[in-house]
Amino acid sequence: MPVNLRPPGPDDGLVIPGVRLAAVNAGIKNNENVDLVLVELATGSNVSAVYTQNAFCAAPVIIAKQHHTESSPRYLLINSGNANAGTGEQGLAAAKVCCQSVAETAGVLTTSVLPFSTGVIGQTLPAEKITAMIPNLYQSLSADSWLQAAHGIMTTDTVAKLLSKQIELAGKTITITGMAKGSGMIRPDMATMLAYIATDAAVDQVTLDAMLQHAVEQSFNRITVDGDTSTNDACVLIATGHADNDIIKDINSDYGQQLLLAITELCQSLAQAVIRDGEGATKFIEIEVKQGRNKEECRHVAYTIAHSPLIKTAFFASDPNWGRILAAVGRSGLTDFDLTKVDIFLGDVCIIRAGEPAEDYTEAAGQKVMDETEIAITVSLDRGQESDKVWTCDFSYDYVRINAEYRS
Amino acid sequence: MPVNLRPPGPDDGLVIPGVRLAAVNAGIKNNENVDLVLVELATGSNVSAVYTQNAFCAAPVIIAKQHHTESSPRYLLINSGNANAGTGEQGLAAAKVCCQSVAETAGVLTTSVLPFSTGVIGQTLPAEKITAMIPNLYQSLSADSWLQAAHGIMTTDTVAKLLSKQIELAGKTITITGMAKGSGMIRPDMATMLAYIATDAAVDQVTLDAMLQHAVEQSFNRITVDGDTSTNDACVLIATGHADNDIIKDINSDYGQQLLLAITELCQSLAQAVIRDGEGATKFIEIEVKQGRNKEECRHVAYTIAHSPLIKTAFFASDPNWGRILAAVGRSGLTDFDLTKVDIFLGDVCIIRAGEPAEDYTEAAGQKVMDETEIAITVSLDRGQESDKVWTCDFSYDYVRINAEYRS
Repeated sequence: MPVNLRPPGPDDGLVIPGVRLAAVNAGIKNNENVDLVLVELATGSNVSAVYTQNAFCAAPVIIAKQHHTESSPRYLLINSGNANAGTGEQGLAAAKVCCQSVAETAGVLTTSVLPFSTGVIGQTLPAEKITAMIPNLYQSLSADSWLQAAHGIMTTDTVAKLLSKQIELAGKTITITGMAKGSGMIRPDMATMLAYIATDAAVDQVTLDAMLQHAVEQSFNRITVDGDTSTNDACVLIATGHADNDIIKDINSDYGQQLLLAITELCQSLAQAVIRDGEGATKFIEIEVKQGRNKEECRHVAYTIAHSPLIKTAFFASDPNWGRILAAVGRSGLTDFDLTKVDIFLGDVCIIRAGEPAEDYTEAAGQKVMDETEIAITVSLDRGQESDKVWTCDFSYDYVRINAEYRS
Repeated sequence: MPVNLRPPGPDDGLVIPGVRLAAVNAGIKNNENVDLVLVELATGSNVSAVYTQNAFCAAPVIIAKQHHTESSPRYLLINSGNANAGTGEQGLAAAKVCCQSVAETAGVLTTSVLPFSTGVIGQTLPAEKITAMIPNLYQSLSADSWLQAAHGIMTTDTVAKLLSKQIELAGKTITITGMAKGSGMIRPDMATMLAYIATDAAVDQVTLDAMLQHAVEQSFNRITVDGDTSTNDACVLIATGHADNDIIKDINSDYGQQLLLAITELCQSLAQAVIRDGEGATKFIEIEVKQGRNKEECRHVAYTIAHSPLIKTAFFASDPNWGRILAAVGRSGLTDFDLTKVDIFLGDVCIIRAGEPAEDYTEAAGQKVMDETEIAITVSLDRGQESDKVWTCDFSYDYVRINAEYRS
């Protein structure tokens, strides 16, 4: 059961002029769900992308990176049900064959097609099932197929993740629509599992790259379900320029900042949707570490808490077993760590003040916070001015069940 | 259900001349089990100890370290059911009161008593329940009470962990007996939850310290259940000298090496017993990383695998989902990592050869290995001569249940 996550509504999946999509069932997942998505980007679109830092990155990640350096992307081909990871030379060949098929059908260069895959690692990609569907997919391309596409990229997700946002820039309405998938093997490192965000704003390539980096750092790179970075993570930001605004060439300009804020907020909502739909999740947990010397150490402490199976199972049980939070902070390995300066809060309830149990803490107050489905943990280190925040979920029987049964 | 872990037999818990023990039910756990243990060490015993590196270390850890610098330890007072951690000044005072009570009863200095606690974090230690039982405990001290003591230190353990070993040194029989407790919050960092190893060998203090460091590095510091380092970890090695051997003053001497080997093997067996009895464990997993540049990087890769919830749940399901192992190796963050040199084995079955899926791998062969209760993962990096090994267990529904219900 996802945590307070509503399915996409009528205001999500708004058309982005310059982007058309299609999704079909190609039989990759062996069920009735759509599992193959084609996204077409109008000529002149700028595209930025970030990919997993996992050294064993999947075949499509290798091909997509390579193609992106050689041509301007015109098509994104995305399949779910098979990650095409751990598949060696054969996997690279399969990804290329799929790109070639799109290129031939659409009459573009093979290098202007970027492939993406998500699903089980280590199984051969059924390229023939994919290429057989390309003509059909190409014929079905439509500007209003975001919802079908969002469904087509899902694996263990229980809810499609699709959001839209509109802002006014100099009298022009700018639309941003983004979709993401992800539920397990989530600890993105430069990107989430798979996320595609498109806007009709005109943004030059350098500025678009900077916007994606910034937005990802504040969103997909701040979430974790289980600490496992996928082999297939990718996040793509597209600017078609069809809104006809003056091209944004400076991220620090007023318009640059406004668009960046809107993109970042949309990415944060998508990233949080991934956590809300985390495998087996029953709680949505925000962990903020404040007053650190730098953001890195804040993030490190936050992730130490976010990855502790003991803390995550206590949250599942709604048990205010705050000793486990304290133990995680204590083992996080900060240099020159002075525990007598540490405050820890569960929601608004102080549990540790200056390294000692808060005198006014009561089990009833802790229990009240833990009974909520959305819980904030705040750790204050009192050794600097920086802070950082990560989002995670709890650890339930269903996490074990989902991952024990994943291939069965 | 522990994994292939037999309860202590008649050859375990052998008497160590110079050591007497007693265990009682002091009502700390609120059940019928013994939960308070007193260990007496003969005058002249040398004692080495290592403690948790968790910055939020428990009150007894702080007091034990301090007392150990001031006096030769004569008594160890150990309670289960309450960790006396996260208890601030009050916790320190409670630990001191308990030491004072032992000191007065036994007629020794308070600083010659070392306190140890294990159990729930963040609850006030019921010092009065403990002090009330000290005279009774003291009267009950006996050389053959190791088994009762091993039971008295248990928390979520399902089997008492007690082992003995004998070796001959220059015609003298040397006996080593050790007990340990631990099942969850296990990722020791300088020691395990609690372990006490005693020998009647005569060993000088410096050599004994070196032996403990070495043995712990090869045993308790190579295990993990859930990656959570406890606030209360401690490991104590005692040499009473009652075997009347010539004092061992050099760890590199023949006798030094023989004794070190016996102690290390005993510590490894105890550490592995902790993993076999890991919370909810159904599989015992040994992870070896070979041909690394140094032991640190081997250990780092091994722990990345050992801490992956996805790998642990796949092992629980006996699913040869080796893609998860590959993904963990890939995200472990080695510098200059060349994945085309990596081999990965599941038992004797090669799954990855030179970074590519092994051509001779079959799902049936992988399944056969996964169906066993004892499984080895071997990763070869082909970039150096060093190797290291860690032990862990799988992640089951029962891990979630045990930790969700721990305080209820």
